Amino acid sequence: MSHRVSDEVVERVTEETRSVHSSRRHDGMIHKVGAPPKQNLLNEIKESVMETFFADKPLDHFKDQPASRKFVLGVQAVFPILDWGRSYNLSKFKGDLVAGLTIASLSIPQDIAYAKLANLQPQYGLYVSFVAPLVYAFMGSSRDIAIGPVSVVSLLLGTMLTDEISDYKSHDYLRLAFTATFFAGVTQMALAVFRLGFLIDFLSHAAIVGFLAGAAITIALQQLKGLLGIKHFTTKTDIISVMHSVWSNVHHGWNWQTIVIGLAFLAFILATKYLAKKNKKLFWVSALSPLVSFILSTFFVYITRADKKGVAIVSHIEKGVNPSSAKEIFFSGKYLGSGIQIGVIAGLIALTEAVAIGRTFASVKDYPLDGNKEMVAMGTMNIIGSLTSAYVATGSFSRSAVNYMAGCQTAVSNIIMSIVVLLTLVFLTPLFKYTPNAVLASIIIAAVMGLINIDAVILLWKIDKFDFVACMGAFFGVIFKSVEIGLLIAVAISFAKILLQVTRPRTVVLGKLPGTKVYRNIFQYPNATQIPRMLIIRVDSAIYFSNANYIKDRILRWLREEDEQRKESSFPTVEYLIVEMSPVTDIDTSGIHAFEDLHRSLQKRGVQLLLANPGTIVMEKLYASKLVKVIGEDRIFLSVGDAVATIGSKVEEV
Amino acid sequence: MSHRVSDEVVERVTEETRSVHSSRRHDGMIHKVGAPPKQNLLNEIKESVMETFFADKPLDHFKDQPASRKFVLGVQAVFPILDWGRSYNLSKFKGDLVAGLTIASLSIPQDIAYAKLANLQPQYGLYVSFVAPLVYAFMGSSRDIAIGPVSVVSLLLGTMLTDEISDYKSHDYLRLAFTATFFAGVTQMALAVFRLGFLIDFLSHAAIVGFLAGAAITIALQQLKGLLGIKHFTTKTDIISVMHSVWSNVHHGWNWQTIVIGLAFLAFILATKYLAKKNKKLFWVSALSPLVSFILSTFFVYITRADKKGVAIVSHIEKGVNPSSAKEIFFSGKYLGSGIQIGVIAGLIALTEAVAIGRTFASVKDYPLDGNKEMVAMGTMNIIGSLTSAYVATGSFSRSAVNYMAGCQTAVSNIIMSIVVLLTLVFLTPLFKYTPNAVLASIIIAAVMGLINIDAVILLWKIDKFDFVACMGAFFGVIFKSVEIGLLIAVAISFAKILLQVTRPRTVVLGKLPGTKVYRNIFQYPNATQIPRMLIIRVDSAIYFSNANYIKDRILRWLREEDEQRKESSFPTVEYLIVEMSPVTDIDTSGIHAFEDLHRSLQKRGVQLLLANPGTIVMEKLYASKLVKVIGEDRIFLSVGDAVATIGSKVEEV
Repeated sequence: MSHRVSDEVVERVTEETRSVHSSRRHDGMIHKVGAPPKQNLLNEIKESVMETFFADKPLDHFKDQPASRKFVLGVQAVFPILDWGRSYNLSKFKGDLVAGLTIASLSIPQDIAYAKLANLQPQYGLYVSFVAPLVYAFMGSSRDIAIGPVSVVSLLLGTMLTDEISDYKSHDYLRLAFTATFFAGVTQMALAVFRLGFLIDFLSHAAIVGFLAGAAITIALQQLKGLLGIKHFTTKTDIISVMHSVWSNVHHGWNWQTIVIGLAFLAFILATKYLAKKNKKLFWVSALSPLVSFILSTFFVYITRADKKGVAIVSHIEKGVNPSSAKEIFFSGKYLGSGIQIGVIAGLIALTEAVAIGRTFASVKDYPLDGNKEMVAMGTMNIIGSLTSAYVATGSFSRSAVNYMAGCQTAVSNIIMSIVVLLTLVFLTPLFKYTPNAVLASIIIAAVMGLINIDAVILLWKIDKFDFVACMGAFFGVIFKSVEIGLLIAVAISFAKILLQVTRPRTVVLGKLPGTKVYRNIFQYPNATQIPRMLIIRVDSAIYFSNANYIKDRILRWLREEDEQRKESSFPTVEYLIVEMSPVTDIDTSGIHAFEDLHRSLQKRGVQLLLANPGTIVMEKLYASKLVKVIGEDRIFLSVGDAVATIGSKVEEV
Repeated sequence: MSHRVSDEVVERVTEETRSVHSSRRHDGMIHKVGAPPKQNLLNEIKESVMETFFADKPLDHFKDQPASRKFVLGVQAVFPILDWGRSYNLSKFKGDLVAGLTIASLSIPQDIAYAKLANLQPQYGLYVSFVAPLVYAFMGSSRDIAIGPVSVVSLLLGTMLTDEISDYKSHDYLRLAFTATFFAGVTQMALAVFRLGFLIDFLSHAAIVGFLAGAAITIALQQLKGLLGIKHFTTKTDIISVMHSVWSNVHHGWNWQTIVIGLAFLAFILATKYLAKKNKKLFWVSALSPLVSFILSTFFVYITRADKKGVAIVSHIEKGVNPSSAKEIFFSGKYLGSGIQIGVIAGLIALTEAVAIGRTFASVKDYPLDGNKEMVAMGTMNIIGSLTSAYVATGSFSRSAVNYMAGCQTAVSNIIMSIVVLLTLVFLTPLFKYTPNAVLASIIIAAVMGLINIDAVILLWKIDKFDFVACMGAFFGVIFKSVEIGLLIAVAISFAKILLQVTRPRTVVLGKLPGTKVYRNIFQYPNATQIPRMLIIRVDSAIYFSNANYIKDRILRWLREEDEQRKESSFPTVEYLIVEMSPVTDIDTSGIHAFEDLHRSLQKRGVQLLLANPGTIVMEKLYASKLVKVIGEDRIFLSVGDAVATIGSKVEEV
């Protein structure tokens, strides 16, 4: 913090300031700081509301159109398929067909496995993959997302439902699952209707990375039950309970036949994944490996009758399409409240995942993705899902990536997948009787490994330590406590970061870059020099109640510290304090009061307050509050350069 | 939104840009955007923690001092009286004596009245005014604050305690009051110890204005019981219940003798207030009028024996100093939880009020006020208070103003007041037997009128509509529902404002002020002109997860809208997008990803992305994330002017 300057430098700087001033006088001074005529209040409120809730200008297309066209556009807005469907052709269908078959092959074993995570019978996973993708294909705007049940939401749902009804074989458990799914859909729809989609932005990227990694490990640990063939397993999900459960079963609870099957196929699937990573063209090998494992292991158990030797098998999957479940949903009674609560959480998490996926691929292929339409599509598909025996569906990271790589063109690939799942439900489910649980565990473990993104964590550490802490908080919260706690920690840390930003904004001292008229942070530009008799401070934030007092105190502290240093180095002490207001986008009543206080304190110290470049809104408020008269209109300048030049000339004249 | 430009203007601007460029080349370009060597991680964290929690540098005095001196300074830090007491003299004492006597005369009737608000017996109000001011005088750092019970906290306490124990004559009620007081003190102390004092800044000025006005009206309405002599009054505080209670009692519940006494003295006190407002020198008339009313009305009732005609009187005040109440506090049992809860809320509100008062007067007289010492002093005085039969004390707006106007010099005026209250407790309380409740109601009504600050509300409306809404939310919440709900609404609105700021930051289009090298918001400066082929956008906020996507989308929308307009007016369309980063104080991982996406989208559109003046932290993160390589180091400029000049020269060369 030492920027002492010798006498020579003082002279040179003074000289320069003068020359700046003389050149400035001709050009800069003709412009006064603009204070545009005050806007109409209604307009002001309208604009602010529009920008907050309708930042994407959803109604722009509708402008200046005849009523009939407006109707068509409106229907197309709800069902984008009517828009893009008109330019659909055979070559696109070829891509979609291949992609649809690929994700179907990946989806079927995953569906059966994920249903177990939600403590539901295997067919419910397949139900999700039949209804939801169909609805989405008609209403969604992403071209690459693959819809269905996903591991994290399944686990979350399983945990929260079991907290409420511990007997997961009871009918009430199933009913509560549908209730939660219904309200997850309602939540997603409500966010769209009230245009509150920006709320999901509050779950930061960092928090999501940590949360997903934690969830992946938790899910993988849960699979030790299936993989090791343990019968009596803990119902808790934290790592300590699970490891304790695993070790206490080591002597009599493990089944070696199960372990062999599980590890063999896990090794096979991971090997194909590794292969696909090395050679992107072989991605289909890894996409098909779960299905191959599924079929091979089922066949193997059927032949060897390993199920008689303690290898747990699926044993029964209900045949046929989804039955209606409209009457199963709790619309009253003691489970309504918890159904809503679980639904809201699951709906938000599902939406966050879907939007993250949608954005990623929309950005890669550069097509517009309408967040609001996504929410409507998600909401509708989950509401319909809840009426047709499906639980919460969303976009899957791994299957969407496969969908993309397999060359999908539109949401038609989801329709193809849906048809394949339908055929499976109607014809194939009896064949899955002998599928060992161990292979399902292997499929899940291999799938969730993709959720652990070490590179992203390293990047977080490099770029932003606070993000890293949020990430780790979410991660450890999930693995040591529970999914909900991890989520809570992540949100809390994210909020703390925002609050910190608005409570302790940065203020920096500016100096002049030699040979220019540019004033910059003296810590960033060590060759920037301070001006004698002046102190230039930039406030890097809107000035609100949450930081107004801090900013005032901090500016006074800068002044005190500078004066002490300048006295030591015999650099002329501060007589003029210039506050560079460019970054101050807004000021509220508390901010105005803080500036009044600052002005008064400075007056008592014999220091003059000058403002440089206040923005539109700040100028309006300076006028509205009459603070502009207190400070003096002639002390508000277009730029720091102008202020320095004007003072320079005054000092000379004296 | 139309800033079309004719061909001539295009040419002129192009010309100017070129000239800017040629002049710039000599000076501006020698400076590269500074990217200082990365700081040591520990240092970085340390600095950030220091700035957040120790912004006031409390240990600066201790630096480079011998151990013995450090000890003395440490003791002085806890007991500021040891510091300022050394320069105390007779002339200061004269001021303090007069001020102390004045606030004592105001305090005694108010104490008795406010105790009723808290549903406690009258002597408890006096107890508060004896112990707390003494403790504060030794430990506080404000010279003008007058300590004692205040109306809002008394009401808040009364409401919350009655919610818990509806029988306010029971001994448990009293014990819970002491328990809450104890934990109020602990809360205040904890905020100081953990340096979390900035939390009280989150209750915005606007919210406080509305909250106090609402509380004042609620308190005044409660006084209708005493003023109209109603015996059966509602225990609710909302305006509808109270008015209903008043009107349903109109035929048999009102007592005309009480009304006459009450209204006569209310008129008298208000008249003296009006007088004092007109002529500041007569402030003592208004300061003494409550005491005069108190004595006169007591004497009047004693002579006329109006109490036999239904005029309610105080009837009994316990004589003697505060008994110990250390054993009365609930440290376990079913009331501990609610005691802590009530204590935390009351402690925060009390602290907010005290800090607001302290800051106001410290700013008027320009002396430093140490927020942390204030919290320690408040915490200690309430903890000691709770052990000596006092309830929550804090600084009173009205009495502090009187203290200031009566010429107080130091906290000694609080000691004087405390002694007078002590003498009253020991000798005078029996004389208060015949004091009519109606006069207490009049004193309270007159006192709380000062909490309604219409001018401040008008100013809020003028300066910031959002502040106005927060103010009104708190106000209506208090009067139509309850004090707690009003408080909750105020905090919620304040938070919403902060969240809005970080979710929807402003982005503006910049243009060049003719004849200068300065680029400014084209809406604020209508004569600023855009540069052909370029679009300059300033982002007015740190780029965080909460706004990264919005900022990216908004920039792309600006680009789309501009291009449409330019096509219509045959102004060269955008090929270069310059993002002015000066106000971007920080960027997190989500922000980096958003810029990557932005860069990719722009590339697909054939538009080049350039950055102007990124700050220290942003540059560090651009390097850490390698984004600087994606964008290109040569596309990051010191200023918008430099960027424009460089592009200008490239365009010419082609």
